[in-house]
Order: sequence, then C-alpha cells, then structure tokens
Amino acid sequence: MADALDTLKARARDLGQLTQLGTILVWDQRTQMPPAGAPGRGEHMAFIQRLAHEFLVDPEMGRLLDELEPRMSSLDPDGFDYGLIRLLRKAYDKETKVPVELRAEMARAAAEGNAVWLKAKAASDFQLFLPALERNIETRHRYVEALAPEGELYDVLLDDFEPDTKTEDVTRIFAEIRDELIPLIAELREREIDDSFLTGNYPTDRQIPLLQDVIDTFGHRPDSWRIDPTEHPFAASAGRDDIRITTHWYPTNLDSLFSTMHEYGHGLYQHQLPADVEGTPVGGPASLGIHESQSRLWENLVGRSLPFWRFYYPRVQERFPEMLADVDVDQFYAAVNKSQPSLIRIEADEVTYGMHVILRFELEQDIINGRVALRDLPDAWGQKMHDYLGVDVPDDAHGVLQDMHWSTGLIGYFSTYLLGTVMSVQIWEKMQEDVGDLDELMERGEFTPLREWLGANVHAHGRKYPPQELMQKVVGGGIDAKPYLAYLKRKFGAAVAA
Amino acid sequence: MADALDTLKARARDLGQLTQLGTILVWDQRTQMPPAGAPGRGEHMAFIQRLAHEFLVDPEMGRLLDELEPRMSSLDPDGFDYGLIRLLRKAYDKETKVPVELRAEMARAAAEGNAVWLKAKAASDFQLFLPALERNIETRHRYVEALAPEGELYDVLLDDFEPDTKTEDVTRIFAEIRDELIPLIAELREREIDDSFLTGNYPTDRQIPLLQDVIDTFGHRPDSWRIDPTEHPFAASAGRDDIRITTHWYPTNLDSLFSTMHEYGHGLYQHQLPADVEGTPVGGPASLGIHESQSRLWENLVGRSLPFWRFYYPRVQERFPEMLADVDVDQFYAAVNKSQPSLIRIEADEVTYGMHVILRFELEQDIINGRVALRDLPDAWGQKMHDYLGVDVPDDAHGVLQDMHWSTGLIGYFSTYLLGTVMSVQIWEKMQEDVGDLDELMERGEFTPLREWLGANVHAHGRKYPPQELMQKVVGGGIDAKPYLAYLKRKFGAAVAA
Repeated sequence: MADALDTLKARARDLGQLTQLGTILVWDQRTQMPPAGAPGRGEHMAFIQRLAHEFLVDPEMGRLLDELEPRMSSLDPDGFDYGLIRLLRKAYDKETKVPVELRAEMARAAAEGNAVWLKAKAASDFQLFLPALERNIETRHRYVEALAPEGELYDVLLDDFEPDTKTEDVTRIFAEIRDELIPLIAELREREIDDSFLTGNYPTDRQIPLLQDVIDTFGHRPDSWRIDPTEHPFAASAGRDDIRITTHWYPTNLDSLFSTMHEYGHGLYQHQLPADVEGTPVGGPASLGIHESQSRLWENLVGRSLPFWRFYYPRVQERFPEMLADVDVDQFYAAVNKSQPSLIRIEADEVTYGMHVILRFELEQDIINGRVALRDLPDAWGQKMHDYLGVDVPDDAHGVLQDMHWSTGLIGYFSTYLLGTVMSVQIWEKMQEDVGDLDELMERGEFTPLREWLGANVHAHGRKYPPQELMQKVVGGGIDAKPYLAYLKRKFGAAVAA
Repeated sequence: MADALDTLKARARDLGQLTQLGTILVWDQRTQMPPAGAPGRGEHMAFIQRLAHEFLVDPEMGRLLDELEPRMSSLDPDGFDYGLIRLLRKAYDKETKVPVELRAEMARAAAEGNAVWLKAKAASDFQLFLPALERNIETRHRYVEALAPEGELYDVLLDDFEPDTKTEDVTRIFAEIRDELIPLIAELREREIDDSFLTGNYPTDRQIPLLQDVIDTFGHRPDSWRIDPTEHPFAASAGRDDIRITTHWYPTNLDSLFSTMHEYGHGLYQHQLPADVEGTPVGGPASLGIHESQSRLWENLVGRSLPFWRFYYPRVQERFPEMLADVDVDQFYAAVNKSQPSLIRIEADEVTYGMHVILRFELEQDIINGRVALRDLPDAWGQKMHDYLGVDVPDDAHGVLQDMHWSTGLIGYFSTYLLGTVMSVQIWEKMQEDVGDLDELMERGEFTPLREWLGANVHAHGRKYPPQELMQKVVGGGIDAKPYLAYLKRKFGAAVAA
C-alpha cells in the first residue's frame, strides 16, 4: 500500500503544481501582463487545464485509486492520506464522467460568453447577451446530465463550488435569512447617518502605505506577501509563502481599506494551510464558502467592528486630516456601517449584501429547473430587487448584467458568498469561546491569538474534510443562520433602537 | 506524413508552452515574487523542467522522428517543418543520451554551486567555492562523455549555447580579436576624456519615463511591452506580444539607459519572431549568439553612435539640466564611449569588453582540457587580466568570482557574448547595404526601416537554421571578426588620431 500511496501522492503534487502555475498566470494577467498578451495567455491557461485533465483521467490514476480505496479503513479518517484518496476519487469520477468534447464546449461557451457579456454590459443590453447565456446554460444542462441525471439538478452544480452541500439545505437557510433581513433592511433605510466624509480627497499615495500597514498589523510571516492594484480585487497564492492580494484604490474614498481586509482573510487562509501537504489537492482550501468565511471574518467581524476602530482609527485619521480631523471614531464607525439598499452587489453593505446573493440563488434555481425563460430574466431580476431591497433597476447594466459569473457558465457560485458570511459568524463565536474576549484583543491591536486560532482550528485542516464536515470539527455543528442573524440584529438593530 | 507531422507539431507546441511558462516564472521571480516564495518557485521550475524532459524523451517522439526523418527530402529545406524536424531530432538525441541521474546530479550541483558561490563571492574567498566548482566541472565531464566521447570536448558544451559552432573557429576568431585589441586598449587608456558629468544626480523618477520613451522611440506594437526594475537586467518574453524587459536604475548615473537599449534589442527579436510558428521550438530565437547580436546592435551601433545622440541628446539633456545643461552632444558622446580597462565584465566599455570574454573562453579551454588545476584559477585569472587589460586583480570577488555562470556549470556560455557582438557589426553592415544611410535615419529618429529589415532578414527565420547557417542567409558568409575590428578602429582609433 505504501508504494501505491506514494505514487498517488506524487501525482497529487503534480496536480497541485499545475494549480499553482495557473494561479501565477491569472495573477500576472490581472496585475502585470501587457494587454496584447491576452491571446497568448489564453493558450497558456488552456494548456495547463489540458494537462490537469490528462493527469487526472490517466488510467493509472484510476488503478491506484481502485487499489487504495478498499484499504482506506486501515487509515486514520482524520489524516491527510485518507482525505487525499477521498478527494481524488471524487475528482477522478467527475472528470472521467464528463466527455472531453463537452468540457471543450463548456470552455468555448465560457470564453465566448465572457466576451459577449463585456459588450452587452457596456451597451446595457441583455438581448445582446441572451444567445451566449443560452449556450452556457445548455452546456451546463448537459454537464448535469453527464454527472447525475437523477435527483436535484442544482446539487450537481453547487458541488463544484461547495462540495457535498445540498440545495435543500441552502434553500432553507437562505429563506430564513430572507425573512429576517427584509424587515431589517426596510427599517435601516430610514435611518439618517452622515457618511459624507467618506467621499472626497483620499490621495492614493497615502492609501498605499496604509494598506501595507493594515496587513502588517493583522500579521504574517516576513517577506511573503505583496499588494497590487487591479480592476476587481482578488487574492492569489503560489504557495504558503507567496501570498499576493490585490485591491482597487480610488483617490476619492477608502474602499481599498475594506477590500484589503477582505483579501487579507483569503490570503491568511492560504498562508496557514498545512505545510506537510503543501502544493497537493488535500493541502488546499476546503471550499469557496470556507474561503469566504475567512475573508468576511477579517473584513466585517474585525474590520467593521467598533473595538478595531478604537484601536486603528487614529492611524487613518492622521493620514487624511483634510477629511477626518473633525470626525470622531464613533462617527467613523457609524459611517462605515451605514446600511442602504443599492443596485450593485459588490458595493452592498453588510446587511443588504445577503439579499443580492439570495436573489441570484433563487433565479439560478428557476433557470436550472426551467421555471423562468432566460429572456425574462431582466424582469424577474427587477421584481426581486423591488421586493427584497425596495429599489428599482434602471437598466440591465445595473441589474442582471452586473456580474461576470453567468457569462462563463458559473451557476452555483454565488451561494458560497453568503454561506461563507454565515459561517464566518459561527467560527467567530467559537473562537470567542476558546480565545476569550476578542473585543478586548482587537482594541489592544492584538491579532496573533486570532491568527493562531484560525490557523490551528480551520486552516490546518486544508481540504481533508468536505466543508460541512469541517464545520462540524470547528464549531460542533453544521451551517446555521441563527448566529449570523443574531449578530446583524445585535449590531444594526441595537443602533436603530438607540 | 501529414498526420505524423501534425502530431509532431502539436508536441512541439507543448514544449513551447512549457518554455513560455518557465519564462513567466523566471521573470516573476526576479521582478515581483515575495522573497520567501523562493523554495516554492524552485519546485515550480523543477516541475516544468521535468515535464519538458518527459515530453521530449517520450518514445512516441522518437517514433515520429524516425517516421518523418527519411521523408525530409520532400520538404522545403528553408521551411519551418524541415527546421522543426531537424531541431527536435537533435534535441531528442541529446536528451535521451544523457542519463536521467546525470541530469539530476547536474541540477543539484548547479543549485548547490550557486548557493555556495553567493557566499564565496560575499566573502571574496575562492577556496570556499572550489569544492562546488569541482563538482560542477566533474558533472560536465560526464555530460560530454555521455554525448560525444570522441573529438573536441569543448564543442559539446558550446553546442548547448551556440549550436553547431566549432571550438576551433571560435579560437581563431578570438585570437584575431585579442591580437588587435590589446594594442588598441593600451593606446586608448592614455586618452583623457571627461565623463565626470555621467556620475551625480540622476533621479530615478525622471529616468523611468525616459526609458519608456527610448523603447517607444525605437518602436514596437502597442500594449505589448513593459519595463521593470531588477538586480541584473534581462529580457523575457511570454509570447510575441508579451515582451518584458528589465533594467537596474541607479539615482547616480544613466547606466539604465544603455541597459534598456540592450534589452530592447533582445525584446525586439522576440517581438518579431515568426507568427506562424509562435510558441514552438522552431519559432524561437536561433541561438544565444544571435540574440546577443540584436542586443549589442541596439545598445552599441545605435545607442552609442553619434547620429543617434544628435537626435536624442536634447531629450536627455532637458530631463537632467542640473547635470547636463552645460554639456554638449559631442562631449556627451565622447563620455559614453570612454574606454578604460576595468575589473568587472558587465561594467566594461565597448572596446575592453571583448577581452573579458576571451579571458574566460581561454580559461574554459584550459579547465575542460585539464591544463589548469581549478585551485590555480585565481592566479591564472590575475595573470590574464594583467596581460590583456593591464589591470591588477585585488581580490577574488573582483576577479574569478565575479560571474555566476560557472557556479551553475555553464561552460561555453560566455563565448556567445562576444560572438554576438562580432555578428552585430556584420549584420549592421549588411543592413546598411540594403536600407541605405543608417546614420542619416538615426539622426532623423527613424527606426522603422531598421526594425523592419531586422524583422524580415533575421527575426522572421526563427530557429529554423543553426546560427552559422542563418548568418550565411543574412550576410552571405560565416562569422567574421574583420568588420567588427574595423568598426572599433574606425570609431575609437580615429578619435585617438584626432
């Protein structure tokens, strides 16, 4: 068994290497590459994806898994070896069940869809986008058909982003959130909060060192992180000690501060993944949802908390005296937590954000189950925006065309944003139980206990468990909306009452 | 045949993709990567090299070549298909003849050698470096033994950098250069030229836009080039439209200007390689020597010429008025062409540079043929520096330890620097014959005819010919030192006489 296991591990390392190469290429494309390099970069990415496919479906991979799987009972189910065999078995079965021609067609539909979407969004014209969307949805139906023609169709799609998570559970959780958020949002929109000082003169040459200071204050090993500007912020990692976060700095506001804290959370997860299995599939992050729980934790539970700002606000204030000299910490805290329904998901505040995700999740259900015709999506979108957030959508660019995801066939992805946000509060509360008064630590600027607890309890498990099993290990239960809803009502409801 | 040829081409594209991935990784490491990412990056590079090896020695590759080779007579010998088969046959034979264990040992000796060299250079202690050098030389001997145990040993090493070029030809050419240069250098060192204004206050924030202006003035397609700072300048290309040159800017001098022109020449070569076979081995550059001919051409024959400076000097002068307001173009031209023997190769001027290369070439002959004991290298180095350049070497760091090459086993590489310089003058004179008065074009700032001639006559051939065969096509003869020596004497001797 040792030999077969070693061989499997060597093959797993090769797959991990390809993942890391792909990460560097994407980061490079979005932050460094001369624009004319795009077609060549498309070839590079296709080449890496082809190799990953070939490595995975290699018959020898199947043979090794067949040899190892019956012997899993002799392995520690909490060990990485066990987790690796389970992961690769699942990946192998998925990859071999989907015909190569369909994979290629999905890739072409995605590439074409993305190009058409860019034009359609610029023209704010959904009809222009419709044929490309139809083609992407059609290939997704064939994908579901190839993998699991029985049962809940959407489960198959969700599994690519949040493994082993069931549509019915997500539906229940999101319905619970929706029913509580709608009245809270309606209540908060009436509140008057002055956030005018958050827009104005925030020179980027003073923002940049501040962003570096934020990630240094939160903490990391030396010489292993960098920050770059990009259009849409993301985090990339080419290894535990090569963490690259990105942000978008604007000379008129401090949005880069919160996006940096968000990406710090993603980066810290990669930074503290288990060293022993680095660069293998089982050494990676557990899921998109768990990843998002880490980014939301640092962005919201730390970065939009009053204790944090009691500690950190003077550093911001002294850099931007023209804007903030007369603003005290309570005013600043209230302003960065102002809740107001708006049209664009990625600009939404902590309270309204969830409704943007729920709207998309519900529409995806309707799309996949044929309950809505694609040509009617703009109307369905507008109706839900009205019902859930009380806003009217003026045009497609500010509505159904705002996000890239569907243009490349990514159905099921959006859910992970809200699942992660929900889990971030569960994890926070467990950390509070174990570590002690987190408010007090933040107010003293001490983040090491937070980093270390997350490292030992979440990050160190890598991907050896599916996300819901990981949550069992971390918080002793599955995903649960109640702590999240209680947190929102405590933080925002209380202020309303005050 | 079409099928076998198509299959070979597809495999060639895969090899080309790996080369491009490696290029991005190296560029990233030297310009962007957080330092702590180095061990992980080593894994990435080893992974790519392993894949390239496996792809090349795949028995199917051998079978395809066996099938195609007898049919080459039906192919156009000036076509890329013919060139590709020839190239891959040679690469396949080389790669399969060298045992995998020896390749691994060479890689380990190189990695270890480089690490030891860094320490030894910092301590200026050759004895510290000696065991690692011995190990590298020993593995090179076994490499030669594996490939061609008969004949001239050094030919085997040279072939890795300048294919099909013979040691006896290089020996003859270098001897001719040496005998002419020694008296010229001795004569020039007595000349008094004021270049004091080249050292002083040259703020980098004014250099950077100037460097961008230089490459824009020389010319290229839009959105396809970038310049970054690095320790040791180099050019990297991830495709014809993704050209990345690097330089090292110092706030005290204008060295970055000449290193940028040098790297522009390398970049332009990659930028104008044949589009049809882009990303395949036959679509790459012909050799290191030909590459260097392009960089030297732009750095020296353009960038250190009086006509160029008559056109361009005002732009430099106006950016650095504190240093250059009272310096006229003739003084500037004389200063940037001042020849003075010095200890460090990469800082040497156009006249003395060749002697640094010849010294290394001669020592490499002695090393490989056992005529010098490795422990005696510092003395041998010092003696030649005294004889050729009239300078005394104060310590190992400024002598035998100054270059990285030998520490990683690169024996045969240095020659290409001077071979390229020699060829640059032959190519320049042929271009002059075809295009007309190049001085006049440069003085008017018109570089398009130069770019286009180089593109059509040198770059468009890619790697379909070995370098000496390419020279036959371009200039109608093999490599020849006479035009180079005549150029140096015309440019530098005349001034002496004046």
